[in-house]
Amino acid sequence: MSGSAAEVDAVSVLRAITPSLDPSKYKGQAGKIAVVGGCREYTGAPYFAAISALKIGSDLSHVFCTKDAAPVIKSYSPELIVHPILEESYSVRDEDKGHVSSKMLTEIGKWMERFDCLVVGPGLGRDPFLLDCISEILKLARLSNIPIVIDGDGLFLVTNCLDLVRGYPLAILTPNINEYKRLVQQVLNCEVCDEDADHQLQMLARQIGGVTIMRKGKTDLISDGEIVKSVSLYGSPRRCGGQGDILSGGVAVFTSWARRCGLSTEHNSAICQMSPTVLGCVAGSVLLRKAAGLAFESKRRSTLTTDIIELLGRSLEELCPAC
Amino acid sequence: MSGSAAEVDAVSVLRAITPSLDPSKYKGQAGKIAVVGGCREYTGAPYFAAISALKIGSDLSHVFCTKDAAPVIKSYSPELIVHPILEESYSVRDEDKGHVSSKMLTEIGKWMERFDCLVVGPGLGRDPFLLDCISEILKLARLSNIPIVIDGDGLFLVTNCLDLVRGYPLAILTPNINEYKRLVQQVLNCEVCDEDADHQLQMLARQIGGVTIMRKGKTDLISDGEIVKSVSLYGSPRRCGGQGDILSGGVAVFTSWARRCGLSTEHNSAICQMSPTVLGCVAGSVLLRKAAGLAFESKRRSTLTTDIIELLGRSLEELCPAC
Repeated sequence: MSGSAAEVDAVSVLRAITPSLDPSKYKGQAGKIAVVGGCREYTGAPYFAAISALKIGSDLSHVFCTKDAAPVIKSYSPELIVHPILEESYSVRDEDKGHVSSKMLTEIGKWMERFDCLVVGPGLGRDPFLLDCISEILKLARLSNIPIVIDGDGLFLVTNCLDLVRGYPLAILTPNINEYKRLVQQVLNCEVCDEDADHQLQMLARQIGGVTIMRKGKTDLISDGEIVKSVSLYGSPRRCGGQGDILSGGVAVFTSWARRCGLSTEHNSAICQMSPTVLGCVAGSVLLRKAAGLAFESKRRSTLTTDIIELLGRSLEELCPAC
Repeated sequence: MSGSAAEVDAVSVLRAITPSLDPSKYKGQAGKIAVVGGCREYTGAPYFAAISALKIGSDLSHVFCTKDAAPVIKSYSPELIVHPILEESYSVRDEDKGHVSSKMLTEIGKWMERFDCLVVGPGLGRDPFLLDCISEILKLARLSNIPIVIDGDGLFLVTNCLDLVRGYPLAILTPNINEYKRLVQQVLNCEVCDEDADHQLQMLARQIGGVTIMRKGKTDLISDGEIVKSVSLYGSPRRCGGQGDILSGGVAVFTSWARRCGLSTEHNSAICQMSPTVLGCVAGSVLLRKAAGLAFESKRRSTLTTDIIELLGRSLEELCPAC
């Protein structure tokens, strides 16, 4: 990939939006994140996203998953609040689907306004009934004006139904190489062009009405249709599955922080001109890269996603010491 | 055991086939492994095989197991993708077996071509209906030309139905002393002969049509019916259960790497004349021996399989440093 994207001073962004730790604050003020994902087949991905949000500094981290996935995700960590409210087709009779769907929506609706950011997609699977329910959750989150990070199977859903996010400036899509390819084909009706990567990404984000897109790769490219920024800090050459889930949890926390932080004139103008969603992507990207690099230093080829998660705290402390 | 098997320079083999870590690669390119095993009774073995594959360096590791085994295997680690698609006789009515079997096959068929290697057998059990389903999976993997490492109860199945692997050069059998004995009796219609171990192993592999067999023991003997190689690096005197599962996962990763690595003239001719399956066995053997030795140094009589798995990364780094 080449292009004109300005490499952003990502560490300065992270520092500018990370809130101070003030003893007078109370539970919840550092952020409440919810991950929507986890089905019979996939349980690791939503856990990675939700625990990463906590380890970066959010106060509370919820997971909304299927009934089968819940006990497993709960067993990974007592730190998470896991709601077994989703259902897949195999466990619902056709005539019950309407009822099940509206009950699920009432349940998650009770929580929605408390959340600072949603992550939709990690370990979601592709069950049609489940994806229909997720569409309703996305509509509800939009009505509540809550930022939504969309990854994994959430991108599969959204790529096939772009109206779910079209024109919503608080939507953040985080496609990997293959997911980006499908998105470009679907929206721009052409192939991915690496020579003109920045412009293509900008056009893509603009075409979906100003959502923010982070194109993940050796360099992460980020655009909200207005500006295009890149983060290239070298992380790790290991490509074990699950790193995208850490990123989605991190982007959620940083986006919620960026929306609250009230950047002032003391921050440089390059930072002030970025939207909270772009700032969240930049900070999430640089933190994952830092932690993956540290994990690789000690674990080498054996590095797994849990090793990286264990180093989120040290990485954050090195980039932005808690005072 | 004595014989003429040439002790192979196993560390050089491991180095020759292990891919470089290149930041421009993306998820999946270092290998996607699937373990088929895990039932109501056994859940540790498939976990050991699958997590070992990841810790050696594959990007993704799947497990296909029974519905009862899945939540338990998932709970061991969020890193694995666990598919609860198999069934044992106790949970299926006779009249439903055809339907259940074909549904299972459709499910695994969707994934098959994405895998670089299958491991069939760890913790499989011997339920007749389940083994019938496994036979169908083996046929499907053959059609897709995917290497298959067969261990544990997979060897029980295959020894009783040799046509499942006969003439398939990408099949790798990894029998221990008792499994080897049954295989020799069944195929060669005689007893194991330690004085002529190399030749007998070669005849056995040839008789089954050129599959690769690793006869595990104090020395591991490996043949594909053409050449016979041995690995004797001293490991550990501890014989705790589960080490064979580490080996099967390791052989799967290294075989998939050996198939891709494109050995060139810079490698010595002894390495170039070995098939990918033999190379995979050699590298898997030496890595397990190294890790078991390191684990025994610190844990002594208390050494368990998880202790060995924890040292796979350090062992690999000592044998073949990541650049």
